[in-house]
Amino acid sequence: SELRLLVDMLHENGMVSEEQYGRLLAELEQNQQQSAKEKQEIAEKLELATQPPEVEVTTKGGLRVRTTDGEFETRLRGRLMIDAADYMGKPEMGDGTNIRRARLAWTGRMYKDWGFQLDYDFADGGKLRDSFVSYLGFEDTRLRMGLMEIPFQLQYRSSSSNSQLIERSLLGAFGGDRYIGVMADTKKQHWTAAAGLFGETATRQNPIVDEGWGVGARFTVAPINNEKDRLLHFGIASMYRNVEDVGVIEFSDEPEARVAGNNIVDTGDIDNTKSFTRYGLEWAMIRGRLSAQSEYVLTTVDRNNAENLQFSGWHFQTGFFLTDDSLNYERGDFGSPSPNKRLGDGGIGAWELTLRYSSLDLNDKLIDGGEIQNITYGVNWYPVPMLRFSANYIDVLNVTGGDNHGKEQRIFLVRSQWAF
Amino acid sequence: SELRLLVDMLHENGMVSEEQYGRLLAELEQNQQQSAKEKQEIAEKLELATQPPEVEVTTKGGLRVRTTDGEFETRLRGRLMIDAADYMGKPEMGDGTNIRRARLAWTGRMYKDWGFQLDYDFADGGKLRDSFVSYLGFEDTRLRMGLMEIPFQLQYRSSSSNSQLIERSLLGAFGGDRYIGVMADTKKQHWTAAAGLFGETATRQNPIVDEGWGVGARFTVAPINNEKDRLLHFGIASMYRNVEDVGVIEFSDEPEARVAGNNIVDTGDIDNTKSFTRYGLEWAMIRGRLSAQSEYVLTTVDRNNAENLQFSGWHFQTGFFLTDDSLNYERGDFGSPSPNKRLGDGGIGAWELTLRYSSLDLNDKLIDGGEIQNITYGVNWYPVPMLRFSANYIDVLNVTGGDNHGKEQRIFLVRSQWAF
Amino acid sequence: SELRLLVDMLHENGMVSEEQYGRLLAELEQNQQQSAKEKQEIAEKLELATQPPEVEVTTKGGLRVRTTDGEFETRLRGRLMIDAADYMGKPEMGDGTNIRRARLAWTGRMYKDWGFQLDYDFADGGKLRDSFVSYLGFEDTRLRMGLMEIPFQLQYRSSSSNSQLIERSLLGAFGGDRYIGVMADTKKQHWTAAAGLFGETATRQNPIVDEGWGVGARFTVAPINNEKDRLLHFGIASMYRNVEDVGVIEFSDEPEARVAGNNIVDTGDIDNTKSFTRYGLEWAMIRGRLSAQSEYVLTTVDRNNAENLQFSGWHFQTGFFLTDDSLNYERGDFGSPSPNKRLGDGGIGAWELTLRYSSLDLNDKLIDGGEIQNITYGVNWYPVPMLRFSANYIDVLNVTGGDNHGKEQRIFLVRSQWAF
Repeated sequence: SELRLLVDMLHENGMVSEEQYGRLLAELEQNQQQSAKEKQEIAEKLELATQPPEVEVTTKGGLRVRTTDGEFETRLRGRLMIDAADYMGKPEMGDGTNIRRARLAWTGRMYKDWGFQLDYDFADGGKLRDSFVSYLGFEDTRLRMGLMEIPFQLQYRSSSSNSQLIERSLLGAFGGDRYIGVMADTKKQHWTAAAGLFGETATRQNPIVDEGWGVGARFTVAPINNEKDRLLHFGIASMYRNVEDVGVIEFSDEPEARVAGNNIVDTGDIDNTKSFTRYGLEWAMIRGRLSAQSEYVLTTVDRNNAENLQFSGWHFQTGFFLTDDSLNYERGDFGSPSPNKRLGDGGIGAWELTLRYSSLDLNDKLIDGGEIQNITYGVNWYPVPMLRFSANYIDVLNVTGGDNHGKEQRIFLVRSQWAF
Repeated sequence: SELRLLVDMLHENGMVSEEQYGRLLAELEQNQQQSAKEKQEIAEKLELATQPPEVEVTTKGGLRVRTTDGEFETRLRGRLMIDAADYMGKPEMGDGTNIRRARLAWTGRMYKDWGFQLDYDFADGGKLRDSFVSYLGFEDTRLRMGLMEIPFQLQYRSSSSNSQLIERSLLGAFGGDRYIGVMADTKKQHWTAAAGLFGETATRQNPIVDEGWGVGARFTVAPINNEKDRLLHFGIASMYRNVEDVGVIEFSDEPEARVAGNNIVDTGDIDNTKSFTRYGLEWAMIRGRLSAQSEYVLTTVDRNNAENLQFSGWHFQTGFFLTDDSLNYERGDFGSPSPNKRLGDGGIGAWELTLRYSSLDLNDKLIDGGEIQNITYGVNWYPVPMLRFSANYIDVLNVTGGDNHGKEQRIFLVRSQWAF
Repeated sequence: SELRLLVDMLHENGMVSEEQYGRLLAELEQNQQQSAKEKQEIAEKLELATQPPEVEVTTKGGLRVRTTDGEFETRLRGRLMIDAADYMGKPEMGDGTNIRRARLAWTGRMYKDWGFQLDYDFADGGKLRDSFVSYLGFEDTRLRMGLMEIPFQLQYRSSSSNSQLIERSLLGAFGGDRYIGVMADTKKQHWTAAAGLFGETATRQNPIVDEGWGVGARFTVAPINNEKDRLLHFGIASMYRNVEDVGVIEFSDEPEARVAGNNIVDTGDIDNTKSFTRYGLEWAMIRGRLSAQSEYVLTTVDRNNAENLQFSGWHFQTGFFLTDDSLNYERGDFGSPSPNKRLGDGGIGAWELTLRYSSLDLNDKLIDGGEIQNITYGVNWYPVPMLRFSANYIDVLNVTGGDNHGKEQRIFLVRSQWAF
């Protein structure tokens, strides 16, 4: 130190005596030790005070708590959809309001490699949704056991919160089933694959008759998926379901609004049914603000002592953002659009115009379920992420056959939604 | 520094040579820089270590997580009410126990200006409660869209957890409705206003018939509301509800206890109903330990090809704290009493004696629903905030008309409750 | 300081003038004060930065938030059980899958001495589980008021997550009841006691007829319970239940699998019932990897104008861990096994073989409910704590009397479970 240098110089120059020099050196030594000790203490306390916490808590609508070592995580997620509909024309359906979904999901990770989920929809009396245990120890691949949606149809693989129009298309007659089973899925940037074996639904069924079972698989490729706003996606899927012991199956759908709770086409009970098989084709693209997607589904019914049946449907839908936003493709499905400029932060949120043509044919041989075409016009407003307001006008172009033959319904449907 | 001063002096006095002086100054300079650097490092680490966390987690029964920038907040709130009742006299009703409410509410804030809520009551099969999206960007004013209680009756505007007697009064026949709609409310220290437009309840109704709709508004003033324990409150409210397509309405009530689940007065279905309108007057005061409140409601029913009807009721209730506590008025409703001296902290909690007289007349023209008066005596104990034990004795003074004409029931009702 | 020493020496040696000495001392003094102040500031900031947080958040599957002063705590706990069963032989029962339990429990502590809990099972339509307010101000003793399981049978006192075989034994015909009531329990290392007074279930019952009521108590001793893997446990319990006003009781059970939802023995409605009383004996032991337990229950039914009845049953079950693990006894019940060596952490988790013999007799006098014996073989795998996969093979040895007389069912049952 500079003091030591001075003391040495003064000693050298004979300004301090030997005895004084000795005392000065001893004092210097002692004080240096003391000072080093103090510095050390401060450094230790600082290290303690600045180390990252063991647990990280974040909230952005939902709640996420995770250990910083990545071993454990727990998240609360929710979703509320509030609908109102005005049904015009025939068939008569009741105007009104409805809580379409009110969901609370608890999901997380245990000991790094294991996942859990419990998801419940409180709307209309309450129903369990995807609830399972999963193994996450493989890269990009997940094994799940529990209650899950089958891997079928792009519009069902994307969350209901992210549906481009308020409700999914008439192909809902052939999708959205949830069963208890086991499933493996792999999600890569340019392809995804999923396959599973499924038993029955989450509730106790008929106590005497064996429940149905089935298998299903879906494969998608995305040759273009390099940038956020450029996508080309193709997919194929198939599922088989054995319902031999139950013996009955029914296909039906509401007219792309679910407030009244009335079907517009409906096969009624198809008896003597052994099994049914569905085949699905899907295509989607994003180019900047523009997106489009289309799906086709063929369902065949295999029966005992009765004619086999075939039903089919398809839809084409497109959307265009008025603001500088685009759809958010994840691996094999669509995520939630996140406005580039939030309302209240210099922007007006994201605005999207949407359009869909749907066609569904539930007529075959002696089954007169009805054939329907409709076109739906829509607008979506996302003022901030996680919040959405939508309006749809559904124009039923034609119903051929079935109870509602020749009727042309029009529906005005609005939804307010938060989801995270 | 003092060392520099000494070195300069010694140099000045000729005690150190020019060369030594130069070396000393260089060493001094270097060490000063080193020392300043160390101090700077410590200061930076301290700044890092002492800065407030980005997320603040608090628990007081419930759970609250909020970002310290005020952008996001998420809260879990709950409520459990455990009832037991002994019904004496006529009509016969079943003694027993009941979980009256078991509620979990998830509420919060997103991007500062938007709010969300999902509230569910798990009791008796499960029902959705106030669940909505809200806009909070205006000062003291809130816009909501979703499932909400109509703005009618002081006793329903105050949470069931804070009801002075265990159950609300017989005016329950004319209140407590929840519908899906939009509502704006403003809450100031000396007045509140709320108005909304409402559709139907949260579940799907009759799929053919249009659901009902209505409007409602409430206005309150509190000319005295300066100190915690001085209040004078007046309010008026009205609501109109169109039920033309459903065509039927019914008014009924249980005898201020809801364990047996039996009505004591009941109009039965009133058919040919086009609409009904309710008018409400309310008054309340607090002066230290004493509080009182009274409400009057008139309901008119407008019918097709049938006589219009009028029903009405009123109640007066008062409470007096034996301990040094008082009711907690918020803006336009009553909050939860918080004992000044907690049990286990030098106090005995808060003790309150309560009394209510209620009268309800459901007789008019050909409708013979019954007219009833009852008086209810009660005691409330709040050992600590968020916890409440109550006992009520309900004495039905008189039933005139209806199925229970001339019967005089008495009920002993107790409740244990936590709510936060 | 060493500098002061040097200055004093130089002054003493006449190297600096009096005036210079004075200036040096003043400068020294000032700088020392400055330095002490800086140190003080750093120390204060360090104290602030290193003090423990007011709230501690932990996640390990579930979520726990508690104030470090011990005043408040809130926890989220969950449980999901996914079952699949194949029923062979007679009687015919439907093979299938089921979500057996999907539970979310919210539990915590308020103002140190008070506890709260809300527990809900979302499976099969939803049911409230143990939900209460509790007083925790006594050491090792707890008072509770609310919805609770009666203190009867070791297999029901242990959580369903920790049941050694997938389902509890046939003694389920005589246990697992939940009522609203008040209960006190004390848990010591070598004994436990519990006693309560109970009303009815959590939902509204018959609105006219008084609900039943009852009392129950259980006492256990564990003369050996010093080390983790050595236990000897004995217990007795009794409960009385008055159902005079309802007048009807029924005892029944499924065959140790609950996927189909069908009873294999069933007394049907026993009318003219005044009350019933149950007596239970229990025994359990752990010695390292081996465990065994046995229970006997006698139920007597007291009737009006009809013969009194007696039913009884017992089971013996044993388990042996293939890995170096053992059952986890808590005070009076069994907790969840925690594998010594986790999968993915150098181990294969915990593996246990299990076996149970159960016998239940629901035949007495004119009541022909059926007598049944079955033996169940099982294997449990706990790869990590909180996760469990089990398989059971249930072999119904004999049914004597009742609707299923002479039938010998076999069931293969698997379960996947997470619970925390």
